Amino acid sequence: MSDLKSFVAANGDRMLQELNDLLRIPSISTLPVNASDCRHAAEWVADQLRNLDCEVELLGSDTHPVVWAKGPEVPGKPVVLAYGHYDVQPPDPLDEWETPPFEPTVRDGNLYARGATDDKGQVFAIIKAFEAVSKGGKPPVNMRFLIEGQEEMGSGVLFDLLDERPELVEADAALVADTQYYAPGIPAIEVGLRGICYGEITVRTLKGDLHSGLYGGVAPNAHETLVHLLAKLKTEKGKINIPGLYEAVKRPAKAERDAWAKLPFKEREFMRDEVGAKALTGLTRYSVFERLWGLPTLEIHGIMGGFTGEGAKTVIPAEATAKVSLRLVPNQKAKTVEKQLIKTVKQLAPTYADVSFSFIHGADPVLVDIGAKPFDLIDQAFREVEGRGIVFTRSGGSIPVVAGLAKRGAPVLLAGLGLPDDRLHAPNEKIGVDQFLNGIRVYGRFFELMAE
Amino acid sequence: MSDLKSFVAANGDRMLQELNDLLRIPSISTLPVNASDCRHAAEWVADQLRNLDCEVELLGSDTHPVVWAKGPEVPGKPVVLAYGHYDVQPPDPLDEWETPPFEPTVRDGNLYARGATDDKGQVFAIIKAFEAVSKGGKPPVNMRFLIEGQEEMGSGVLFDLLDERPELVEADAALVADTQYYAPGIPAIEVGLRGICYGEITVRTLKGDLHSGLYGGVAPNAHETLVHLLAKLKTEKGKINIPGLYEAVKRPAKAERDAWAKLPFKEREFMRDEVGAKALTGLTRYSVFERLWGLPTLEIHGIMGGFTGEGAKTVIPAEATAKVSLRLVPNQKAKTVEKQLIKTVKQLAPTYADVSFSFIHGADPVLVDIGAKPFDLIDQAFREVEGRGIVFTRSGGSIPVVAGLAKRGAPVLLAGLGLPDDRLHAPNEKIGVDQFLNGIRVYGRFFELMAE
Repeated sequence: MSDLKSFVAANGDRMLQELNDLLRIPSISTLPVNASDCRHAAEWVADQLRNLDCEVELLGSDTHPVVWAKGPEVPGKPVVLAYGHYDVQPPDPLDEWETPPFEPTVRDGNLYARGATDDKGQVFAIIKAFEAVSKGGKPPVNMRFLIEGQEEMGSGVLFDLLDERPELVEADAALVADTQYYAPGIPAIEVGLRGICYGEITVRTLKGDLHSGLYGGVAPNAHETLVHLLAKLKTEKGKINIPGLYEAVKRPAKAERDAWAKLPFKEREFMRDEVGAKALTGLTRYSVFERLWGLPTLEIHGIMGGFTGEGAKTVIPAEATAKVSLRLVPNQKAKTVEKQLIKTVKQLAPTYADVSFSFIHGADPVLVDIGAKPFDLIDQAFREVEGRGIVFTRSGGSIPVVAGLAKRGAPVLLAGLGLPDDRLHAPNEKIGVDQFLNGIRVYGRFFELMAE
Repeated sequence: MSDLKSFVAANGDRMLQELNDLLRIPSISTLPVNASDCRHAAEWVADQLRNLDCEVELLGSDTHPVVWAKGPEVPGKPVVLAYGHYDVQPPDPLDEWETPPFEPTVRDGNLYARGATDDKGQVFAIIKAFEAVSKGGKPPVNMRFLIEGQEEMGSGVLFDLLDERPELVEADAALVADTQYYAPGIPAIEVGLRGICYGEITVRTLKGDLHSGLYGGVAPNAHETLVHLLAKLKTEKGKINIPGLYEAVKRPAKAERDAWAKLPFKEREFMRDEVGAKALTGLTRYSVFERLWGLPTLEIHGIMGGFTGEGAKTVIPAEATAKVSLRLVPNQKAKTVEKQLIKTVKQLAPTYADVSFSFIHGADPVLVDIGAKPFDLIDQAFREVEGRGIVFTRSGGSIPVVAGLAKRGAPVLLAGLGLPDDRLHAPNEKIGVDQFLNGIRVYGRFFELMAE
């Protein structure tokens, strides 16, 4: 314990500089123009792991490879698999960043950059923890790293890889550092993640755009049709109007909901300071935690088509496209929900409109079994570093591969370092410098405890 | 008459080449980046008029000046004012153009370019008609030109100018070439134009964009709020839900509606070939003509905000903006409608959302009195060239300055050269080469008849 503390104290600045090097690479996986940056980030991670005497393989893709690494063999010791990702979300809207997204900057104890918390900062903390406990080339456990480059676009390459080579993820514990504390000073294990079904709904009503003066009043407007369709797809009260959608939803057990109700939580402060809204919306007869963690949601992310330039253009748009996604909860299946959505969209569309749904990516929701011993050990590691143990929460977000890891049998520890105000996927994403440095100590201690 | 025919036969190719030079200038008035192109187009028009011995003034704006010109004095002859505009609409979506919008191209008897029919081709036909009848420097009438560069953005500069110097538009007839034939071979005078109220509705629900996994289910989504607001603002049946909006609407007289009912019109062909839709929508208990010419409409032109890039970004948008416009009919007033819209938008918005309306441009609707003699003369000119006289129609479009011209007393002749399939404001805008050349003969003959 004191070894780890002094290691971090002695090497903190150097490790932050290394993290900055990784954060400078704009490895945005959803944008084809950044494919070579994704490759660059993968190589950078691979080099880090090679320096720690790992055997490294870049697998599955030339542009967004899965970095798989195997630490030095330690006979008789357990196998620990660490999962994370080196890809990031697009940074727009750029003008809302106080400092540029790919120029990491420390302000007031936080490191700001796209990917700071999601997920470069977190996965790098595991790598540095492994460095900390590997002094002299003899780490306490048999380490495996699985660090992918498509988490933000659905992990397609990784799914295929796990189907082909399931042995890559055989382990006694899988540590996933892509989640957050419940609150500052209150570490959490997430026992559930929502799944996702993301795609585009496109409506076409005309062969081509028309002049709104000459044809306004008789020509069907694609945006108008889309707007009515979207308004029907989810009510103002937050109910999603997709027949059958809620039938598969398994409500969290009363014991779990009771535990959530005991978490320290001030709804007013959450609304005002964290969400930044004048009201919380959705299915308000359920608690905030149940709406976030235990119920599906449907969101519109953006609407394309027509004229969106500066000034005025009086056009009746022929085509309109909405980017939408559903978040899914146990026991919904992404494939089933996709089919339900397509069917509903076709039914809601007027006969004069051509409507289609184009699937982009998906992931099933996941619930992990928290009975295994590694849960006690990570709890102890947090206790030693943070002075308090974990609470069990869920997350409303999705980490596509977790369902696949859980299926293969290792206890999956969703034990991340983020904080609720880290603004992942949004402008001014950050990670607390202390969260990063303490995380190195927590993970290092966890490796030591696993070896005992 | 035969003089004009031989002039056009001898000079047609040269005049088309000159028109192409004007069409190559991307004088998009609504885009600030094209301000110098607008100035360029104004200078080009001014040079043309100076070559016809006109005194030319560029008025009201350095970047989008009104070109005002006075032809040689012809004592005892009437004053004819010609109105048109040299500015054009933005060309997007660019990928739907068969040939680039600012590289004029003739295919199958049509000249394709942005501005071909709206309005460079039409206003240039008047200039060339004046050239045709000005042989030897002695034109038949006292000619005035009023050619502006802000028609597509509301004519603000011109309005101010007319308030300051109303004498600029004193005339015995005002010829406006910015409209269309009823059908090929059937010239039309438009006796009514719809007005417009164009602006942006913006909804803000959050301080900043949020991650849809972490906050989806409780955070108000700006796009969702906007979608519900827009869906309420106009029903699927086409009724605009703005209290008081329809009260000012004066229905066209039965005689006018009866005349419309006698116009040759095949609704099925119109729907399929001209509109390019599977159904005509709107207030279907009114005729197509009444919906287009006699009733207001509300259109969504585009929706901004959130994520509209390639791929997937799981964001809850904090802000969403819709470009919208209303077309107005007698006796609605643009200013009143703007106030009604703002009030309604604020009432429809949920309390947790900040909603605003940002006005971009407007114009009152207009009805012209068709009793004056110049209407008979333009009818005769069309008879001589086209072999048939005019029909009286209206237009659903708006020409902001027409209300101002009509108010100042000269009979306003909305006698344009376009055809219904010219795709103004849309990709692949065109003008028929014969429409352009015949138009020169019609306008030239009209000047001769005015002088008799």
